[in-house]
Amino acid sequence: MNDHVARPDPTADPDIDPRRLPPHVFRCRVYYEDTDAAGIVYYANYLRFAERARTEALREGGSDHSRIFAETGVALVVRRCTLDYLAPARLDDLLDVETRVAAVRGATIDLLQTVRCGGRDLVRIEVRLVAMTRDGRPTRIPASVRAVLAGSQTPDIKNAERNQDRGMEHHG
Amino acid sequence: MNDHVARPDPTADPDIDPRRLPPHVFRCRVYYEDTDAAGIVYYANYLRFAERARTEALREGGSDHSRIFAETGVALVVRRCTLDYLAPARLDDLLDVETRVAAVRGATIDLLQTVRCGGRDLVRIEVRLVAMTRDGRPTRIPASVRAVLAGSQTPDIKNAERNQDRGMEHHG
Amino acid sequence: MNDHVARPDPTADPDIDPRRLPPHVFRCRVYYEDTDAAGIVYYANYLRFAERARTEALREGGSDHSRIFAETGVALVVRRCTLDYLAPARLDDLLDVETRVAAVRGATIDLLQTVRCGGRDLVRIEVRLVAMTRDGRPTRIPASVRAVLAGSQTPDIKNAERNQDRGMEHHG
Amino acid sequence: MNDHVARPDPTADPDIDPRRLPPHVFRCRVYYEDTDAAGIVYYANYLRFAERARTEALREGGSDHSRIFAETGVALVVRRCTLDYLAPARLDDLLDVETRVAAVRGATIDLLQTVRCGGRDLVRIEVRLVAMTRDGRPTRIPASVRAVLAGSQTPDIKNAERNQDRGMEHHG
Repeated sequence: MNDHVARPDPTADPDIDPRRLPPHVFRCRVYYEDTDAAGIVYYANYLRFAERARTEALREGGSDHSRIFAETGVALVVRRCTLDYLAPARLDDLLDVETRVAAVRGATIDLLQTVRCGGRDLVRIEVRLVAMTRDGRPTRIPASVRAVLAGSQTPDIKNAERNQDRGMEHHG
Repeated sequence: MNDHVARPDPTADPDIDPRRLPPHVFRCRVYYEDTDAAGIVYYANYLRFAERARTEALREGGSDHSRIFAETGVALVVRRCTLDYLAPARLDDLLDVETRVAAVRGATIDLLQTVRCGGRDLVRIEVRLVAMTRDGRPTRIPASVRAVLAGSQTPDIKNAERNQDRGMEHHG
Repeated sequence: MNDHVARPDPTADPDIDPRRLPPHVFRCRVYYEDTDAAGIVYYANYLRFAERARTEALREGGSDHSRIFAETGVALVVRRCTLDYLAPARLDDLLDVETRVAAVRGATIDLLQTVRCGGRDLVRIEVRLVAMTRDGRPTRIPASVRAVLAGSQTPDIKNAERNQDRGMEHHG
Repeated sequence: MNDHVARPDPTADPDIDPRRLPPHVFRCRVYYEDTDAAGIVYYANYLRFAERARTEALREGGSDHSRIFAETGVALVVRRCTLDYLAPARLDDLLDVETRVAAVRGATIDLLQTVRCGGRDLVRIEVRLVAMTRDGRPTRIPASVRAVLAGSQTPDIKNAERNQDRGMEHHG
């Protein structure tokens, strides 16, 4: 998934412009529990850091996954993820997990999450989330989540920008 | 909890004699996921091995915790546990987790679980389980679990032995 | 990564034909430790099952990652992985983790690992391993691992087949 | 271990008075990774929260376990721990892990750690740490750790108080 160039996407949600959302940063420390005998963070544990970051990004945006599920019966489920391991994190490292929205469609959200330490990229994670009903069927992303993804834009500004911005570079 | 000497216990279940139950042994391998940067199994992970052993001991005895919960609404919950770390387990070790029943009362089961490698005791774990209802209240241990704990004894044999064995050394 | 069609790959190792290697299957049970409050296996934990399967595939092929590292200073490190979550695994499920070799190059091994339950694919994982030296540089895959990947073929048979098989469907 | 009453302990370190150390509090959130299919925090995971709390208590006291090990070859290892599970923690709970020093001897430190939520005690953990050399032998607690345990007292003040305080109630 190339998130650097915007190709007009007919399925993209017209009311949400990922370029407008500032990236969210979640900070976490590496403890013994996260490491393995190779002296580095065990490869599966980056997915735990990533989940904490997504949960906090949602919470800080004013939403809450448990409340969403209780009210709408909809959960955001990971459908697919790709991890690129560039360099390892180590015991005592202070990590910054940055979360950016790459694309939003009716039922899916594509995120790019980057685990950094001291300004250096350690692991890049592409995550596709799907909104799912209790009985396991894809459904429309709940309104409260769409609100978080839309950031602080008003519908008027978004309409104007939408006409201008088609085809421009996608920072998300 | 001293499980080497039998003190007459008025609360002990009269139909279950832990000394009659052979210890159960569960074998498991240490993988990278279990270790930490100190090169040994992370201290919390022995509780995971212990849980696997308890689940398998129940399953091999003909019972099943999920089915029990579905049928009776009762779950066996860990109320208390003590871990003595004698020596560490390491990557690639083949561990034997032995489970012995130390005592059985109306609502509780005391177990002694030992993690061994190559015949050497690494960690000793004392576990107290309590049978709990869905709304969190202690209740009587379900019949199917009592059957597993009673082993292969018939009620007649147990009655005869009960009269003889009070005060004798408790192996469990 | 499309592992169904063989495109002549100039970097492919000429002595190893992944189509000749039978897939390896590793069986494991889902315990409470693997699940989360959604009632299913937590998304990161499939990477733990996958690692167990890779370790056992190597062991059953006659090699051993710790011995390899001790003797050569080379470790097989996960460089990249992609997980496709098709359906969830649940508490008490008996899972089969199948490992197939998709491609082998001088320093890298591409695997396709599939987590199944009752014959149904739950999660598909593509893994790229890189042979790395102690100081973090890619290096040639150790001889003992190449032997495992080569299966039981002799060099003569492989040479003959190599000439015939270019362009044919790749099962790996 | 009763930490409410001070019994004169001839092995206690005379320069460290646990009653003078204010308890340390570490705050952490419960995420999906910490829970299990029963809808609560998996019983082993409280030991991970407890370790984070100990590491932060040491760090905030001006010391650091990795630096200690690098400089002295001494590590603080868990020798024994007891967990009392009073009530469960759940997804999204904000937990406070309080760490108190109960006793300090030449090579050992006894801690009482309490996991709380909303002012309610959920899990009480007694931990015995032992200072160990690289070759696994108990040794004297390193000076930098003793400094943290001694809090902000000067030797003069401690001597005076030591004479007064024997036999008084032990808050630690």
